[in-house]
Amino acid sequence: MTYLPGDLIYEGKAKKIFTVQNRADLLWQEFKNSLTAFNGVKKGEFDIKGQLNRDISAIIFRYLKNHGIRCHYVDALDSNIMITQKLKMIPLEVVVRNKAAGSLKKKFDMPEGFDINPPLVEFYFKKDELNDPFMSDDHVVMLRLLTYEQIQKLKTTSLEVNKFLKKFFETVDITLVDFKVEFGLSEAGEFVLGDEISPDSCRLWDKATGEKLDKDRFRLDLGDVKTGYNEVSNRIKKVYGEKL
Amino acid sequence: MTYLPGDLIYEGKAKKIFTVQNRADLLWQEFKNSLTAFNGVKKGEFDIKGQLNRDISAIIFRYLKNHGIRCHYVDALDSNIMITQKLKMIPLEVVVRNKAAGSLKKKFDMPEGFDINPPLVEFYFKKDELNDPFMSDDHVVMLRLLTYEQIQKLKTTSLEVNKFLKKFFETVDITLVDFKVEFGLSEAGEFVLGDEISPDSCRLWDKATGEKLDKDRFRLDLGDVKTGYNEVSNRIKKVYGEKL
Repeated sequence: MTYLPGDLIYEGKAKKIFTVQNRADLLWQEFKNSLTAFNGVKKGEFDIKGQLNRDISAIIFRYLKNHGIRCHYVDALDSNIMITQKLKMIPLEVVVRNKAAGSLKKKFDMPEGFDINPPLVEFYFKKDELNDPFMSDDHVVMLRLLTYEQIQKLKTTSLEVNKFLKKFFETVDITLVDFKVEFGLSEAGEFVLGDEISPDSCRLWDKATGEKLDKDRFRLDLGDVKTGYNEVSNRIKKVYGEKL
Repeated sequence: MTYLPGDLIYEGKAKKIFTVQNRADLLWQEFKNSLTAFNGVKKGEFDIKGQLNRDISAIIFRYLKNHGIRCHYVDALDSNIMITQKLKMIPLEVVVRNKAAGSLKKKFDMPEGFDINPPLVEFYFKKDELNDPFMSDDHVVMLRLLTYEQIQKLKTTSLEVNKFLKKFFETVDITLVDFKVEFGLSEAGEFVLGDEISPDSCRLWDKATGEKLDKDRFRLDLGDVKTGYNEVSNRIKKVYGEKL
C-alpha cells in the first residue's frame, strides 16, 4: 500500500507527526535525530538516530503484535517513517521497572540494579509544563483520566508487555531494566500500545558486562551514544531479521 | 493515675519523647514550642505553641475516640505533656485532602481550594533524608511496608477520621482543607492513630473569610502565627470544653 504524508500536526522532542493523505485513521510518524533529556533541558542529536529508533520500534511492535498485544504499528517506510493507527492518547507515561535505576533508585535510595519482584508499574502525568509528575492510582482517578477498573486493566496489559519485552531482549543478551510506554484508546475503547519502544524509552544493559546501551549514555555522559543504539539495533536485527 | 517521665528516647522537630517510669506500654510526649517547615529548612517558634498543639490534639483525640476511632491518646498532663500508648509506628505520612492546596495544588496546577470529591488519600514515605517522597500503593507494597489489604484498611480508616474531623471543625466554623496523620500498629495488629492533630498538621481555613489559621501562616509568612493557633484553640475550647 502507498501512503503519502499530509499536514504536520505535531512536533515533539523526538518525532514529527503528520496526517496520512486520504486515511483519517492513520498517522505518518517521522523519527528525528534529536535527543533530549531531563524534560528537554539537555539536548543532543546524532545521525541515523531516527532510523535506529524507528527500526528497533518497528521490530518490537511486530514482535508484540505476534504475541497478541494491541499496538498502533501499521507499517515502516523509508528510513525513519512509521505508519501508525491514529489513537486517542491517554496522557500518562506508564513506566514498568524490573530493576532499580533512575528516579526510583534516587527516590528511595535503592542500590542500582536492585531486583524489583514483582515488577513495578508507575504512572506519570504527561504534561511538560508540570514536569510530568508521578501519580498514584487515586490521582489518576481524581483527574478523571481513567477509572479504577481501567487502571487495573492498564497495569495488567503493561505487565504483559513487560513479560514479552524481557524475553525479547534476553534473546539478544540484554537485560531490560525498565521502560516507558504510552497507550491510546481505540475507537472500540481498547487499550492500544502507542508511541515508540527504543533505547530512548528503555533502560537496556548488556547482560554480561552491565554496560548501558540506552539513553542513559546521553543523560549521564557515559560515552558515545550512537554506539549503544547501534549495538541494540544490530543484535536485534541479527536475531529478528533485517527486513522492515 | 500518676505518670513520671523516664529516659528521653527521641527528639523530633516538634516533640520530645520519653519513656514512662514502670509503664513499658506508654510514652511521655512533650510538645515543643518550635516550628519547622519545608523538611526543617525553615525554623521558628513561639511561646505556648507546645501547649496549644497539645490542647488541640488532646481534645481531637478524645473526640475521635468517642466516635470509635482507635487513638494512642491516654491522658494530658501539665501544660504540654501527652501520655500515649506506645505503638510500632508505620513509616508513612498519610495525607487526606478535601480541597486542593499545598503540594497537590502545585503538582497538578489546580486552583487553590478546588473541591476534591471524593476526598483523596496520599502516602508519603516518612524519611527525612529522602525528603519524605510521595508514594503509590505499589511503592508501599514494594518496600514491604504494608500489604494491599492493609492499605485498603488504612485508607478506609483515614477517610473515617476525615469524616469526623470535618464535622468537628465545621462546628467551630473552620473548613478542614487537608491533614496529615500517622498510624501505628497495636500489639493486636490494629491500626491506631498516633502523632498529633493540630494546626501544624492540618490546613484550617476560617469558614467565612477563608483566613488561614494553620502552619501556612508560618510557611508563607502570612502574619502572626500564634494568633491563628490561638483562634483555633479558643473556638474548639468554647464548644468542646476547657477541661483537659
